[in-house]
Amino acid sequence: MAKAKIINDPIHGFITIPHGLLLNCVEHPWFQRLRRIRQLGVADFVYPGALHTRFHHALGAMHLMGLAIQTLRGKGVKISDNECEAAQAAILLHDIGHGPFSHALEHSFIAGCSHERIGAMLIARMNTEFGGRLAMALEMFEGRYSRRFFHQLISSQLDVDRLDYLKRDSFFTGVIEGGVGSSRILKMLDVVDDELVIEEKGIYSVEAFLNARRIMYWQVYLHKTTVSAEAMLALLMQRARELSIENAGLRLPLSLEPFFSQTINPEKLESTPELLDAYAMLDDFDIWACVKEWLGFPDFVLNLLCKGLLDRKLFKIELGSEPISPERVKACREIIQAGCRLTSEETELLVSTGEVSNAAYVARGGHINILTRNGQIIDIAKASDLSQIDAMQKPVKKFYLCRWNPLPLQP
Amino acid sequence: MAKAKIINDPIHGFITIPHGLLLNCVEHPWFQRLRRIRQLGVADFVYPGALHTRFHHALGAMHLMGLAIQTLRGKGVKISDNECEAAQAAILLHDIGHGPFSHALEHSFIAGCSHERIGAMLIARMNTEFGGRLAMALEMFEGRYSRRFFHQLISSQLDVDRLDYLKRDSFFTGVIEGGVGSSRILKMLDVVDDELVIEEKGIYSVEAFLNARRIMYWQVYLHKTTVSAEAMLALLMQRARELSIENAGLRLPLSLEPFFSQTINPEKLESTPELLDAYAMLDDFDIWACVKEWLGFPDFVLNLLCKGLLDRKLFKIELGSEPISPERVKACREIIQAGCRLTSEETELLVSTGEVSNAAYVARGGHINILTRNGQIIDIAKASDLSQIDAMQKPVKKFYLCRWNPLPLQP
Amino acid sequence: MAKAKIINDPIHGFITIPHGLLLNCVEHPWFQRLRRIRQLGVADFVYPGALHTRFHHALGAMHLMGLAIQTLRGKGVKISDNECEAAQAAILLHDIGHGPFSHALEHSFIAGCSHERIGAMLIARMNTEFGGRLAMALEMFEGRYSRRFFHQLISSQLDVDRLDYLKRDSFFTGVIEGGVGSSRILKMLDVVDDELVIEEKGIYSVEAFLNARRIMYWQVYLHKTTVSAEAMLALLMQRARELSIENAGLRLPLSLEPFFSQTINPEKLESTPELLDAYAMLDDFDIWACVKEWLGFPDFVLNLLCKGLLDRKLFKIELGSEPISPERVKACREIIQAGCRLTSEETELLVSTGEVSNAAYVARGGHINILTRNGQIIDIAKASDLSQIDAMQKPVKKFYLCRWNPLPLQP
Amino acid sequence: MAKAKIINDPIHGFITIPHGLLLNCVEHPWFQRLRRIRQLGVADFVYPGALHTRFHHALGAMHLMGLAIQTLRGKGVKISDNECEAAQAAILLHDIGHGPFSHALEHSFIAGCSHERIGAMLIARMNTEFGGRLAMALEMFEGRYSRRFFHQLISSQLDVDRLDYLKRDSFFTGVIEGGVGSSRILKMLDVVDDELVIEEKGIYSVEAFLNARRIMYWQVYLHKTTVSAEAMLALLMQRARELSIENAGLRLPLSLEPFFSQTINPEKLESTPELLDAYAMLDDFDIWACVKEWLGFPDFVLNLLCKGLLDRKLFKIELGSEPISPERVKACREIIQAGCRLTSEETELLVSTGEVSNAAYVARGGHINILTRNGQIIDIAKASDLSQIDAMQKPVKKFYLCRWNPLPLQP
Repeated sequence: MAKAKIINDPIHGFITIPHGLLLNCVEHPWFQRLRRIRQLGVADFVYPGALHTRFHHALGAMHLMGLAIQTLRGKGVKISDNECEAAQAAILLHDIGHGPFSHALEHSFIAGCSHERIGAMLIARMNTEFGGRLAMALEMFEGRYSRRFFHQLISSQLDVDRLDYLKRDSFFTGVIEGGVGSSRILKMLDVVDDELVIEEKGIYSVEAFLNARRIMYWQVYLHKTTVSAEAMLALLMQRARELSIENAGLRLPLSLEPFFSQTINPEKLESTPELLDAYAMLDDFDIWACVKEWLGFPDFVLNLLCKGLLDRKLFKIELGSEPISPERVKACREIIQAGCRLTSEETELLVSTGEVSNAAYVARGGHINILTRNGQIIDIAKASDLSQIDAMQKPVKKFYLCRWNPLPLQP
Repeated sequence: MAKAKIINDPIHGFITIPHGLLLNCVEHPWFQRLRRIRQLGVADFVYPGALHTRFHHALGAMHLMGLAIQTLRGKGVKISDNECEAAQAAILLHDIGHGPFSHALEHSFIAGCSHERIGAMLIARMNTEFGGRLAMALEMFEGRYSRRFFHQLISSQLDVDRLDYLKRDSFFTGVIEGGVGSSRILKMLDVVDDELVIEEKGIYSVEAFLNARRIMYWQVYLHKTTVSAEAMLALLMQRARELSIENAGLRLPLSLEPFFSQTINPEKLESTPELLDAYAMLDDFDIWACVKEWLGFPDFVLNLLCKGLLDRKLFKIELGSEPISPERVKACREIIQAGCRLTSEETELLVSTGEVSNAAYVARGGHINILTRNGQIIDIAKASDLSQIDAMQKPVKKFYLCRWNPLPLQP
Repeated sequence: MAKAKIINDPIHGFITIPHGLLLNCVEHPWFQRLRRIRQLGVADFVYPGALHTRFHHALGAMHLMGLAIQTLRGKGVKISDNECEAAQAAILLHDIGHGPFSHALEHSFIAGCSHERIGAMLIARMNTEFGGRLAMALEMFEGRYSRRFFHQLISSQLDVDRLDYLKRDSFFTGVIEGGVGSSRILKMLDVVDDELVIEEKGIYSVEAFLNARRIMYWQVYLHKTTVSAEAMLALLMQRARELSIENAGLRLPLSLEPFFSQTINPEKLESTPELLDAYAMLDDFDIWACVKEWLGFPDFVLNLLCKGLLDRKLFKIELGSEPISPERVKACREIIQAGCRLTSEETELLVSTGEVSNAAYVARGGHINILTRNGQIIDIAKASDLSQIDAMQKPVKKFYLCRWNPLPLQP
Repeated sequence: MAKAKIINDPIHGFITIPHGLLLNCVEHPWFQRLRRIRQLGVADFVYPGALHTRFHHALGAMHLMGLAIQTLRGKGVKISDNECEAAQAAILLHDIGHGPFSHALEHSFIAGCSHERIGAMLIARMNTEFGGRLAMALEMFEGRYSRRFFHQLISSQLDVDRLDYLKRDSFFTGVIEGGVGSSRILKMLDVVDDELVIEEKGIYSVEAFLNARRIMYWQVYLHKTTVSAEAMLALLMQRARELSIENAGLRLPLSLEPFFSQTINPEKLESTPELLDAYAMLDDFDIWACVKEWLGFPDFVLNLLCKGLLDRKLFKIELGSEPISPERVKACREIIQAGCRLTSEETELLVSTGEVSNAAYVARGGHINILTRNGQIIDIAKASDLSQIDAMQKPVKKFYLCRWNPLPLQP
């Protein structure tokens, strides 16, 4: 009889990890690394409780996958024990490719490479290590497994990933309007022609889910203070790279060295095992180590960014629906330059523009299918009498201007 | 120093009732009567936890009124202690005019009289009893007080009544998607030109509130099983009246006699103190007493309705967006008549049609005003980028056909 | 593939009732009756949220039984599907013998008969009705089934009954200190030599459970206001019986008639099917119907008790560790008699004494067995370093004096 | 009218920080540093949600202080606005002297100096910086303010510090049995003769508080896995010091240098402003930076400890009530030495013994005073009928043996 490890989760109660493949995954150093990558990056500058990690989220998603499969089996969908284990392994590992601060620095280390692609490389390596026992999980993760609904459970408009993270992020931030009725939605799942569907009576729960997601991205994920802190992090890494290239004597943690001395593209990452190993060592702590260390480095801009992040003196930010004009940026830089007697170069990293979008939260492929009482399958946008369902699934883009606020320097 | 009574509320924690007018109201028999009127009538047939009363809700709403006033004072709105007490008394008593099963039997006792109108009569009587100390509360309740925002706090699109009942109904039903961030919305309240407004940064919370309300009326308040049970209750009262008029010997509880022996209109109620007294004695228990007692009465239809309500053998119901045709009704009656060897008269109350609407939940007067960051006041439908805000505030009507399902009688 | 009914429970999330025997039990009128018997009688006079019913509790306990069995199976304990269903049916029906207001009027209808004994009679009748499908459940309920641990799961120091009701009562009263970690305790269950045991690492959870139970009986179950209201209910029934015997013309609900016209002992109940049927119709509403109806009856004492219970003008109560002397009672009666010009007879029911005990909460047979890490089984009182475990399992008795407080009558 | 900043706290709802002194404190870099010191050190190895920081806890405690003062004022205790602000500032800053990993490394940086003493030094410095506005807060913090109850609210058996952290730690770990009814206890507070007391009717809540605390220290604070990880952290710092002294070329973060190059006692810390400044820069991230960095350093023991902490390969630990004998330690070392071909020196840090105690949780000075219904003040141990109250307040010591488990190295 299989033993199991039990983990206390304030969200779902107790999470059971069966001995065997799933526990092996959890105990793997690459998975343990997720303990050191926060789910919400720097959102704790706004919501002090938002310190939870991808480790915790991955366990929660695995738990929900178990419940989803239990429901589906209860409705007559045949799922083998192997498939169940593979689906749970796949969702357990779905975030393993994330780097430090997840989205904020997503392309800082490997140019043009999504975390999903890196994740697939890492799972493939683990599969070799585990003697092929992750093969089916990898197929499901990449959407190659014959029964499509497994991939939909892992990654679709309404997958267990989102069911866990919305509930979890709501819990730890305290934004209670963002909570979703995961249990109810899970009970409404069914599979028709290998496609995941939601029973019609779950339609209001799905609407509530879409609304909760909307609340969360504007109130939390794309909160302007969070955006400002993330922009500062990116500027910090940019300035550090510049100083490295100049050989200015900037001290780097060992862990970051491989990523500062060269530009790495996905192909190189995939073909160089040591690079993948090095990537799989990176975590939030490495970046914070830099922030602490570089505080002592004699560069005005670097220093300013480090101190700002440590003391929560964040750049002032405006977020709007119109792009920021170059004139506006120039004007801002001139004010700073004049007021603080800086060089023009120095002000370049003190005013930053960019765009944020909810695309990551809405644009995942596919529809949410509703199974009506008389057995038809229709898109939720048609099944609901609410006209905005479609609107809520379209990406929205906002533009920001983020700049150092030098007033405190003035008398 | 004023002492206070503390009541444990699983929703808001501890509710403090200061000695004086507010405690006098709470201890009044007419208020204590609300302990015997459930907030959600027969919704416990669907949600077994939904047994909470108008008594509990009224206390919660009073508590939220206190928090709202505390927030407004913190933002510089001058509110005197008298006004604060009056506003809390008004919300405490806002439901005092409800009769048994609230909405389900609203017009069964007093024809064409809203519970608000009866409430005003009762508060006026209590005001006399209390030597005029409820005068300001009554003005606020009726919208006659000079500062409009007090009435808006009591009864508007986004009042403390709704902030309490949505949260409370969500809690006791377990429909967690219906929970609202009452605390956050309260913190966002402000008053401009005597009008209640919401700070712009609270806009997503208001959206979430509107969505939660939508969830609750379709999932709970207008749930088809609830509608069926309510229809049966109304049919039961109708049959009992018929039998009373026929002098069939139906035993009535003393409490119901005044309402069966005559038809009462609002004017008569207002002008006849004993009738108002009698009304203020009615509660859910009186109706349940009838159901239990009439079980033994030799009338097929009455018996069927009583037994159905006791054993939860509810009428089968269809709920749709199209009116039910008389032909459909006739056909249903004929099937029952034929199958069960009933008279045509007997089947009249075994098939029932009607309509339900969310009007009570959406149509309360006035807009939700948003105070933008630059000081403008605009309607939320304009402030939000969600197109459906307007749609969500329009009443929707649905039609039902509800009928006895005689199958269990057949071999 | 078995279909199932899903019920929303704010405590445990969603409760699944499989079609078949369990759903048949739930739909049985005798089980539906539990919707009309509150779990905590009149505790809502103190905790307004405490309106939940034995129906809801029974469903919750059935759900926990399912989880307990799932855990035990996971640890290698062989449990057949039949046994699982029987154990769930047994716990579902464990409270079916309760009458109106549960403990408060426990012996008012059937002299000297516990609700468990009546429950066994009712289950036996249902078993006949269901063609013997409840036979194993009845054996488990009565402790006659060969594998003892099933009975221990239903009724022992630490059974699913208590795990549900403590959590549920805590939730609805808002006494959060009374909450128990049911999930954790369930995960720690095991079976050794057919005896239920708790793994050693669950010992602090069991301690917390014992403490939560202690909190609940003093803070809720034996709260002095609750005791006072229960005493008034008992006095009310007593006075009504006296008036019935005197043929004073007191109107009785049909449902109560069989119980007022004769004295019924357990043997008579068991041998008279109509009596058992009549008993299985009784519920809280019958008593409230009396309270409402008797308000109009011209008897000072009866009237006073009815009005007091409706308006929450409860008798003043003292609760202490010493028995109340007859002199004290006499003195109290004399004060009331003199102050209110009553006859000596009338004061007899206006001063009441009695005792309350936590015995019902602590004295259930057997020990809590701890399974130590090296495989030994020891009593928790020995396993814990807390000396009071034994003390917490001993019944405590308190004595009360409860009397009408006539002061409001005086000028 | 004072503006205020609002922070979303999943525990207490919304926390209001008034502009002025309190917001100045919160924005101070030394307070912001608490964002980088976790409340529970390495407890997230057992409870993945336990990542909350002293920053968050301090805000929560400030919030509870506000509620406590509101209750006391409501009972007639005169408290000036200055006193209120000072008490809130004092509790806000009560943990400001903590270093990285709080208790685990408490004496690693400053020998023989409690965090309270360092805290007083830091508050004194901030007081100078703020022009004396923290003078009263400092008096309250150090127990020198004339009205003793303020210090008792900050630091006593039942202070707002504990009321916040128990509730918070319970929330984030998911150990629900550790939750305390903070709101209820706060409502029961009163002041008699300048001493904090609890009203008698709060006695069961205090008992529940003591029990929750007991649950938390055995289940969380002194959980054996946590103890093992903390021991490894201490061994890591010890080995790093040894290597530093040997000039082995170990790279140190700038932040740690002052503390490795010299031994610092409290007097030196107090008299050397730069040292205090350096201390006030330390946080958990500095230690994690070391763990990451030293992974590459060629020292077997250091490497083992770093890898163990990163990959959660923790030392095996036994925890018991008997001291560990030197023979036992010697035997363990010999097994490791033989099995892994290590030198005797190398094994010295691979087997570690020590003791843990709940003293920090129970031994804070003073009694819990109960104010009885007739106005007497007695110790809770006398007021309760539970014999173990005294026992629960006595420190318990446990001894541990913690050792590297080299088995994975063997074939």
